Amino acid sequence: MKLQSLRARSRDCSLTDDALRSQVDTSIIQNYHIHLELLGANCDKYPAKQHVRRVAARLGVSHGLIYLEGKPTTYLDDSDQTVPFRQRRYFYYLSGVDEPDCYLTYDIAQDRLILYVPDFDLRRAIWMGPTLTVDEAQESRYDVDQARYYSSLSDDINRWAAENNEHYPIYLLHASEQPTGTAANLQFDAEQLQPAMDTCRGVKDKHEIDQIRRANKVSGLAHIQVLRNISKMVNETQIEGIFLDTCVSLGAKNQAYGIIAASGENAATLHYMKNNEPLADRQFVCLDAGAEWNCYASDVTRTFPLQGRWPSDEARDTYRIVEKMQEECIKRIRKGVRFLDLHILAHVIAIEGLLDLGILKGGSTEEIRKCGVSRVFFPHGLGHHVGLEVHDVSEKSIMAASGEQEDDSVLVPPTSRSPCTFSAPTLEPGMIVTVEPGVYFSRLALQNAKQQPYAKYIDFNVAARYIPVGGVRIEDDILVTDGGYENLTTAPKGEKMLEIIRRGQ
Amino acid sequence: MKLQSLRARSRDCSLTDDALRSQVDTSIIQNYHIHLELLGANCDKYPAKQHVRRVAARLGVSHGLIYLEGKPTTYLDDSDQTVPFRQRRYFYYLSGVDEPDCYLTYDIAQDRLILYVPDFDLRRAIWMGPTLTVDEAQESRYDVDQARYYSSLSDDINRWAAENNEHYPIYLLHASEQPTGTAANLQFDAEQLQPAMDTCRGVKDKHEIDQIRRANKVSGLAHIQVLRNISKMVNETQIEGIFLDTCVSLGAKNQAYGIIAASGENAATLHYMKNNEPLADRQFVCLDAGAEWNCYASDVTRTFPLQGRWPSDEARDTYRIVEKMQEECIKRIRKGVRFLDLHILAHVIAIEGLLDLGILKGGSTEEIRKCGVSRVFFPHGLGHHVGLEVHDVSEKSIMAASGEQEDDSVLVPPTSRSPCTFSAPTLEPGMIVTVEPGVYFSRLALQNAKQQPYAKYIDFNVAARYIPVGGVRIEDDILVTDGGYENLTTAPKGEKMLEIIRRGQ
Repeated sequence: MKLQSLRARSRDCSLTDDALRSQVDTSIIQNYHIHLELLGANCDKYPAKQHVRRVAARLGVSHGLIYLEGKPTTYLDDSDQTVPFRQRRYFYYLSGVDEPDCYLTYDIAQDRLILYVPDFDLRRAIWMGPTLTVDEAQESRYDVDQARYYSSLSDDINRWAAENNEHYPIYLLHASEQPTGTAANLQFDAEQLQPAMDTCRGVKDKHEIDQIRRANKVSGLAHIQVLRNISKMVNETQIEGIFLDTCVSLGAKNQAYGIIAASGENAATLHYMKNNEPLADRQFVCLDAGAEWNCYASDVTRTFPLQGRWPSDEARDTYRIVEKMQEECIKRIRKGVRFLDLHILAHVIAIEGLLDLGILKGGSTEEIRKCGVSRVFFPHGLGHHVGLEVHDVSEKSIMAASGEQEDDSVLVPPTSRSPCTFSAPTLEPGMIVTVEPGVYFSRLALQNAKQQPYAKYIDFNVAARYIPVGGVRIEDDILVTDGGYENLTTAPKGEKMLEIIRRGQ
Repeated sequence: MKLQSLRARSRDCSLTDDALRSQVDTSIIQNYHIHLELLGANCDKYPAKQHVRRVAARLGVSHGLIYLEGKPTTYLDDSDQTVPFRQRRYFYYLSGVDEPDCYLTYDIAQDRLILYVPDFDLRRAIWMGPTLTVDEAQESRYDVDQARYYSSLSDDINRWAAENNEHYPIYLLHASEQPTGTAANLQFDAEQLQPAMDTCRGVKDKHEIDQIRRANKVSGLAHIQVLRNISKMVNETQIEGIFLDTCVSLGAKNQAYGIIAASGENAATLHYMKNNEPLADRQFVCLDAGAEWNCYASDVTRTFPLQGRWPSDEARDTYRIVEKMQEECIKRIRKGVRFLDLHILAHVIAIEGLLDLGILKGGSTEEIRKCGVSRVFFPHGLGHHVGLEVHDVSEKSIMAASGEQEDDSVLVPPTSRSPCTFSAPTLEPGMIVTVEPGVYFSRLALQNAKQQPYAKYIDFNVAARYIPVGGVRIEDDILVTDGGYENLTTAPKGEKMLEIIRRGQ
């Protein structure tokens, strides 16, 4: 493909699926890479102004100043090396700026978003590369009304405060993040901004959906590269290595989270990160890995055998249960659905499957579900929001009456970010959630289960036969649409996945 | 190679050079990987006890308690994701433990080193994998006298303090790192421990040298993989990608520092990190990248053309100058040498070379050296210590009288870690330093130079012809030995490097 034609086609900011339809090889990656890069350069600016207006509307006020600090340059403990830069997500959401040492203010009444960039420093420029100039920031890079140098920040805030602060607060994300060098008597509000931003961030706009779609395409290509090479690999390290190589080569420098490349029993450790054991004789690899694209996450898990066939009946049967859990949950995604109901459905399917296999026994599906024993095999939530964070924020749950919660023992421990609760808002268009059921055979969890009242429902002898399977998790990122859902994840699964392993390079 | 024979050979903890002598291909990487892994498992324990004894001797006291905190689990800003774990280096030096949430104490009088590990937590174990048990830590993993659970730490310290602390202090690295839950009246000394440890860490023992040697071997193989593939690459991203893949696949999960893959003019930015520009028409790639092995760094830079021939006379001539700077400095490494003298020698060679090319003009070598103009082209120090940090600590310099410093304008700005100062201790056996001369043609630096008194020594028209060269840096890690030096870096350079590019896959 000629550079010229790529350049022309890239203007509409849509990605072709050439690379996915074809075999992934080096030349495809190269072309795809050029394509992604041009897209990045030509796309619309990040819609910072729209975001900050939505946040102000959510705050429900007509005056006030929003003040946010970007991530500063920091150093590793006792080291002269910098911590790898990762922009603060709230700051990115209101600026689109992925550079260190920046700040922003938004004057709500004036509808004026100002970005502050570091002052020019010759030594820093020679060592680290030039920092942004205000002209570059304002004219060509960012959707802000003005860019100014950091040295004018405190004066600007003092000027605003002299006119306004007796009446209207400065909104902060955290009380600890007050501007420095400003007048002593400023009035702050560090309570309202974060919940307002969480609610806005929970529903993605077109630009954000595009980023997550691209992150998924990169992850899909990287998963394919693993599948094509897995039959020749000898250690988990190589899975992590080739996955990283593919993402970084395609321009996705950062992973959205630490890669989990867990073979055999390691898959029963949900966040296994060592990724350094030999693959010989392992039945499955559970690869949970997703690239980041312009600070937006993808979150993708595939579980596959080392050769393109089922390594055992136990492995195949476990895969089939999880596959069904995922398929049945995904097809029910639509606006108005309570995510918790899907989580419970997944448990019901798991319980039925485990009863069929003889791993569970001695009770009805309903009885078993109520006692919570299925959490021994499926201990995590069905999914979570995906956005600027892999476990993204969204509108806060209103705590339900405690009576409601006692009803069901398959609930995961409530965390502020899980949509698997009674009180989480129902799904609405623009939300992106993972659907990631799993079934695991953890020695530790089974050992612990023997001491629990629900032990009678488990046939530990049968379960022991499944321990070498480790665990199966299958995870896609699902966009809630007006009409239902769209699956953004392009990594192959099921039979298509096995076929790629069989074909190899 | 059979697993059996690798296992047998690995017992002596030496690495064969098979992989380097051969072409690097997948099977070599696989075998090499298995080899490294077995070595890792079978090698002697990290000599924590020797280290802590050396530190106590350096402190010059016979009583007292050393207390150190390892890196705790921490979270990214406003996120539920953990910061990628990186052990505190002072803690590793006295424990050899590369796990989060650990602590240690060393009772100097009793010569008793105790490691504290996190208490068992079922939920954590199922999610993150089992933490260390005290038995495992004490018996098989670490060179400590005892391992205990964290829950007994504060009581243990209180017990020691009840008997001793009226007379002897608890030595801390930083005043802010006092143990929690202990009695209120403890006496601390946060002044003496760090300088004592810096001095000890500056001279490496056999175990440490082995780790740095292995880090270098991994880096060497990764550089070779880049050289073999560079002629087919289209973007800097791919250089970073394949380098990472090779290191991670070989079991080196962490880089010792951020990869610098700078093509063309980007090489004039000394710590260029974006690594995302197209390679087309670029003359050189400057690749500064080194793997970490068991927390020990390697630091390796190679500069090479995209095809296996010099892209221009300017590129070749610049390379030759830097090559000579490096060769002449490396061969003078021996105990008793003042590193600053090598730094000055490198400047002299650079000046002679740049005079020959007509980039410098109008003065003698000595006159030009004194005025500092050569720092426009060689702005950084000749090298630094390498160890647990890529810029490692060592015995603190005693500040020289200011008169001494005025003598020479090629001095780099003094930093606490640079050995390129008048007052840094001279080289001694066991020190490992980089020798990394460079010559750069930075638009920014040249523009700034036009305003300086030394502008008359630069022919800016000639210099402009070299701007597309970007810069050349060549960097090896050199061990000071009793008899002279040993170059630990195995990545090919010069003609051997060009030959690999020409041969390709």
